Amino acid sequence: MFDEIDQLCVNAVRMLSCESIERAGSGHPGLPLGAAPMAYVLWRNYLNLNPGDPEWFNRDRFILSAGHGSAMLYSMLHLAGFSLSIEDLKQFRRFRSKTPGHPERGVPRGIDAATGPLGQGLGMAVGMAMAEAHLGAMYNREHLAVINHHTFVLCGDGDLMEGVSHEAASLAGHLKLNKLIVLYDSNDVSLDGPTSCACSDDIRRRFESYGWNYLSVANGNDLNGIDTAIAEAMKQTERPSIIEVRTVIGFGAPDQGTNKAHGTPLGPAGMETLRKHLHWSAAEFTVPAAVYDRFRDKVSDRGAQAEALWHQHIAGWEARNPELAQQLKQSLACRLPDNWKNMLPKYPQGTQEATRNTSHQVIQSVCREIPFLWGGSADLSGSDKTDIEGGGQFSAANRTGRNIAFGVREFIEGTALNGILLHGGSKVFGGTFFVFSDYMRAAIRLAALQHLPVIYVFTHDSLAVGEDGPTHQPVEQLMNLRTMPNVSLIRPADANETVAAWEAALQSQAQPTVLVLSRQKLPVLPATADLARDGVRRGGYVLSPQKGDKPEGILIATGSEVHLAVEAQHELRREGHDVSVVSMPSFDRFDRQSPVYREAVLPSRVRRRISVEMGATLGWEHFTGSDGISLGIDRFGASGPAADLLPAYGFTVNHIVNAYRQLIRNVPDTASAWD
Amino acid sequence: MFDEIDQLCVNAVRMLSCESIERAGSGHPGLPLGAAPMAYVLWRNYLNLNPGDPEWFNRDRFILSAGHGSAMLYSMLHLAGFSLSIEDLKQFRRFRSKTPGHPERGVPRGIDAATGPLGQGLGMAVGMAMAEAHLGAMYNREHLAVINHHTFVLCGDGDLMEGVSHEAASLAGHLKLNKLIVLYDSNDVSLDGPTSCACSDDIRRRFESYGWNYLSVANGNDLNGIDTAIAEAMKQTERPSIIEVRTVIGFGAPDQGTNKAHGTPLGPAGMETLRKHLHWSAAEFTVPAAVYDRFRDKVSDRGAQAEALWHQHIAGWEARNPELAQQLKQSLACRLPDNWKNMLPKYPQGTQEATRNTSHQVIQSVCREIPFLWGGSADLSGSDKTDIEGGGQFSAANRTGRNIAFGVREFIEGTALNGILLHGGSKVFGGTFFVFSDYMRAAIRLAALQHLPVIYVFTHDSLAVGEDGPTHQPVEQLMNLRTMPNVSLIRPADANETVAAWEAALQSQAQPTVLVLSRQKLPVLPATADLARDGVRRGGYVLSPQKGDKPEGILIATGSEVHLAVEAQHELRREGHDVSVVSMPSFDRFDRQSPVYREAVLPSRVRRRISVEMGATLGWEHFTGSDGISLGIDRFGASGPAADLLPAYGFTVNHIVNAYRQLIRNVPDTASAWD
Repeated sequence: MFDEIDQLCVNAVRMLSCESIERAGSGHPGLPLGAAPMAYVLWRNYLNLNPGDPEWFNRDRFILSAGHGSAMLYSMLHLAGFSLSIEDLKQFRRFRSKTPGHPERGVPRGIDAATGPLGQGLGMAVGMAMAEAHLGAMYNREHLAVINHHTFVLCGDGDLMEGVSHEAASLAGHLKLNKLIVLYDSNDVSLDGPTSCACSDDIRRRFESYGWNYLSVANGNDLNGIDTAIAEAMKQTERPSIIEVRTVIGFGAPDQGTNKAHGTPLGPAGMETLRKHLHWSAAEFTVPAAVYDRFRDKVSDRGAQAEALWHQHIAGWEARNPELAQQLKQSLACRLPDNWKNMLPKYPQGTQEATRNTSHQVIQSVCREIPFLWGGSADLSGSDKTDIEGGGQFSAANRTGRNIAFGVREFIEGTALNGILLHGGSKVFGGTFFVFSDYMRAAIRLAALQHLPVIYVFTHDSLAVGEDGPTHQPVEQLMNLRTMPNVSLIRPADANETVAAWEAALQSQAQPTVLVLSRQKLPVLPATADLARDGVRRGGYVLSPQKGDKPEGILIATGSEVHLAVEAQHELRREGHDVSVVSMPSFDRFDRQSPVYREAVLPSRVRRRISVEMGATLGWEHFTGSDGISLGIDRFGASGPAADLLPAYGFTVNHIVNAYRQLIRNVPDTASAWD
Repeated sequence: MFDEIDQLCVNAVRMLSCESIERAGSGHPGLPLGAAPMAYVLWRNYLNLNPGDPEWFNRDRFILSAGHGSAMLYSMLHLAGFSLSIEDLKQFRRFRSKTPGHPERGVPRGIDAATGPLGQGLGMAVGMAMAEAHLGAMYNREHLAVINHHTFVLCGDGDLMEGVSHEAASLAGHLKLNKLIVLYDSNDVSLDGPTSCACSDDIRRRFESYGWNYLSVANGNDLNGIDTAIAEAMKQTERPSIIEVRTVIGFGAPDQGTNKAHGTPLGPAGMETLRKHLHWSAAEFTVPAAVYDRFRDKVSDRGAQAEALWHQHIAGWEARNPELAQQLKQSLACRLPDNWKNMLPKYPQGTQEATRNTSHQVIQSVCREIPFLWGGSADLSGSDKTDIEGGGQFSAANRTGRNIAFGVREFIEGTALNGILLHGGSKVFGGTFFVFSDYMRAAIRLAALQHLPVIYVFTHDSLAVGEDGPTHQPVEQLMNLRTMPNVSLIRPADANETVAAWEAALQSQAQPTVLVLSRQKLPVLPATADLARDGVRRGGYVLSPQKGDKPEGILIATGSEVHLAVEAQHELRREGHDVSVVSMPSFDRFDRQSPVYREAVLPSRVRRRISVEMGATLGWEHFTGSDGISLGIDRFGASGPAADLLPAYGFTVNHIVNAYRQLIRNVPDTASAWD
């Protein structure tokens, strides 16, 4: 079935990749040389992609989980006719080029996910396959498949050692994601040497234990063998497949088969060895016309035809299902239905509610209005209150289910949510306890880096968790996520702020939002019914102003500490001190406001400032300045009833008032000098 | 073999646990009711513990990975005669009690590890088993076993869903840790409902794929069945064992077998049902004398005898191996040999070296002097330079090897390092790229919480990583780890500061230290050969003072940015501005200095301050105050040569000088008003 031209194509991928690396002076030739045949066979005979429309919604997804092999991916994209020139390949790993060191989503177009931190590519692919299954069940009608594609992954030994590969594979097997196919570049070598130094897993048994279909190809250069295995995997109706392809790392290079071939350019002599080994005669960065022809014929033309056929189908489907079509378009454009805010609850002063419970109410409201919103939890939906009532559970038997049971697997939760959004067609949220966000930290980072508006619902947000003790009480997590680029963190103070926080999160287009919610009941604050919506959107606002023209001091608080600040304000007023209370649910949103707004909320001449938050204080000087006081927690929590813990850690009205008295002694009342 | 008294013992554990939970008004009865039989059989017939000497070094280790089942552990400790009274059990989950909500190391004595975040208990146990194997090979001589014990784990379904369980089991199987035995409380239920909602793993196949010995017990109440399985596991000479014990969650409670039995007190009616079901007639918190007798006879007396026998052995061993004995004592007391600093290198100005390379040199020096120091890397020893030359690789065949190949598994690296230190007898370090510290974040937290002086060697510390791009470039990680309680972070500026940082890390007794090191070469700074040792110990110091009495401004920098600050100081001097340069490798160490010292380094009246660090700026106001400028990075990095990236992100002398000019315009020279 494969001929000499195909072999030439494989070698073109190898040569272009190594030439790119050579030109860059750094990069990873090991993977392209070993894995080019499997990538080629997949693209040639199976992968449906249209270089003329890289974001075609029903394309097959291809994730290079072993992202260090990026040069191979760029070579493939170039040869297949994507908008990536030889000149771009020559710019490999240069600043502002279209060919960065590890794949970045959309750079160039045709890259489905940012990979690099190992294991997460596989996790994102699981999310994509989940999205495909879910959207297929939602939209496919009358034998017309609007969404019906495969998700392919190419991964290496390192990916499969990572813990997230376990979580990903276990979940995918459970969910019977049969359209997920993993090509495993099995070469027995990782960065430090033979994998046998660190790993003895029997991959077949391991993946079969997860309910996967295992296939193997004994010789990674055997194009027919690879083809047969992929064809077999495509037939699966119940199980995801992993195809272990035995390869030689750095095939054809002087140090082939060893870790020396993994991550350094071959050098002129090595390149010469490679050329001879591959019988390659073309000049540097030159590709025989027959290769381009074959790629056009087998990859791009086939893909373009597939898309054309799909458009024919979808026209008929659209005519017969106008509402569904409208909904799909909306979801793909990341637009929300017009009336999604209709049902949002409002809360009067005097009521009390845990913000996790408010969040639950909001989820019910918005899920009624936004049919393409779904989400899940890492085995804590009963506690983090993320369940969609009546939404059904997403499972092998029920693909339209909207509740995802991730199991006790936070990391795959994070990576799968990324994959679902990368796939397109959905909005998503995911919950767990705030302290366990540490387990998915690396996935949150990839959401931020890829501009994915994932909504995280992190509950049990402080020491007030109480009896479960320090392993379950977040301390540093608040400030940690505030320092992560492109993450919006909102810690609402009451029910109305929680509604506003959800509103902001749902409107986010290119930024993940972390909602940090309480387990315990919080009183609805005096003015939030009116002020919270705008105030939360802006990140911070004067919740309870001073009585006079200018505040003598400012109490700044977030979340469950805001009502303490309001009570302290009243107490201070009785003592003749006229301070304002600022609710600051979101640092990042506040910092994006105009200087005029920020000055109105935090007048720069008012230097008597106190922050109140049950979390690490480092970072609070951003608002309290050099003269202020940060009431926070810079040690671990403890097990005990919240009523005992909070006073012991200084979270009482009295403690705030005392801190303010200290400020009065030490910091001049610069504010009153204004007039 | 087991009689009615044994059954009474099992039920005493169940009742005491549920009574504790009932009294606390919160807690998790599900595990104690289901798993009490397996815990009892293990303690009765196998576990060697001495309640009279809870820290006996050669005791068997017992880790309750499913830490929410703490009430059971406390009941066992009480019954076995550890220093934990009925009164303590009544204080379960109270503030400052000896019985916190999740087990905390040493609270009470007899608790070997803090567990709670699922999966990590298993990981720590792997570390303990590694330590046992390593120390056994180092110290056992002439058929005298100084160290020769088992490590037992009790885990639940949730533990095994977590990714770290994969990393832990895969590594343990590879290393053939045959003395690691896991009792798996298999009850098909997790918090959100039946595990079948989220998981279909075949545990037998999965663990066999890792090279484990799998055993099962069909009925979790069958004491003989459990006993037989443990006896079988103890015979293993090559494989770690997992014993799947099929149990009923909340056995005997009204909602037994469902998730309702997992995490809430039974209530008075439920308690009554339980009493009837167990035929329990004793009053609340009352235990029949026969139970105490049996525990004394079978657990505490046996343990005490085992320790007495060991002491007899060790006396002979000590006499014949005085040097080894001295070394062991030293390591157990966390003392370093007297001469360990002898070989530390010093670096003259004018040389250049990447701090990761300096770290490599230090590791060679100190490993020669400290025989009980070992460490490893997550498949990056060639890059993070943590390999001990000539140290051999720790493996099944070479237990004395000092280099641990963790594979591409950062999380087990972190948890195993914790386990090794919890075991005692070693000092350890572990390396990876700084950005991948995100993968082991939760383990670093447990090191800090448990006061374990792990040394993390995190290299490739900034944007200067260059071509590998944003997935490989840390940004927020510096500030993140600074906000974690009880963590010391040191980012040295050159070779001499790196030596000093290692010195500080090795001297730490109760705090992990994060060393943040550069991939790129850094010049050795003018004064560090003299100043670094004291300066790094104190966290920050005036590296290059102003010329006059008082600085007009201060440039504060860390790591690779310090030399930029020194160059900017020279440039500013040419322009007539007399500023000081402060090297601030460690925020936490500096904050612990006296106010006098801090004032000397950062005089409070000097308000023209600039910080320079390639990381998130939030947190830097701690030192720059309200008026200063923080030069940092609040977005993701990019792929490209460092020489192109650094200027684009503002890390040039020119940029610092311009920022200072801006300060001159905006901030009055308050310092010169002093005299």
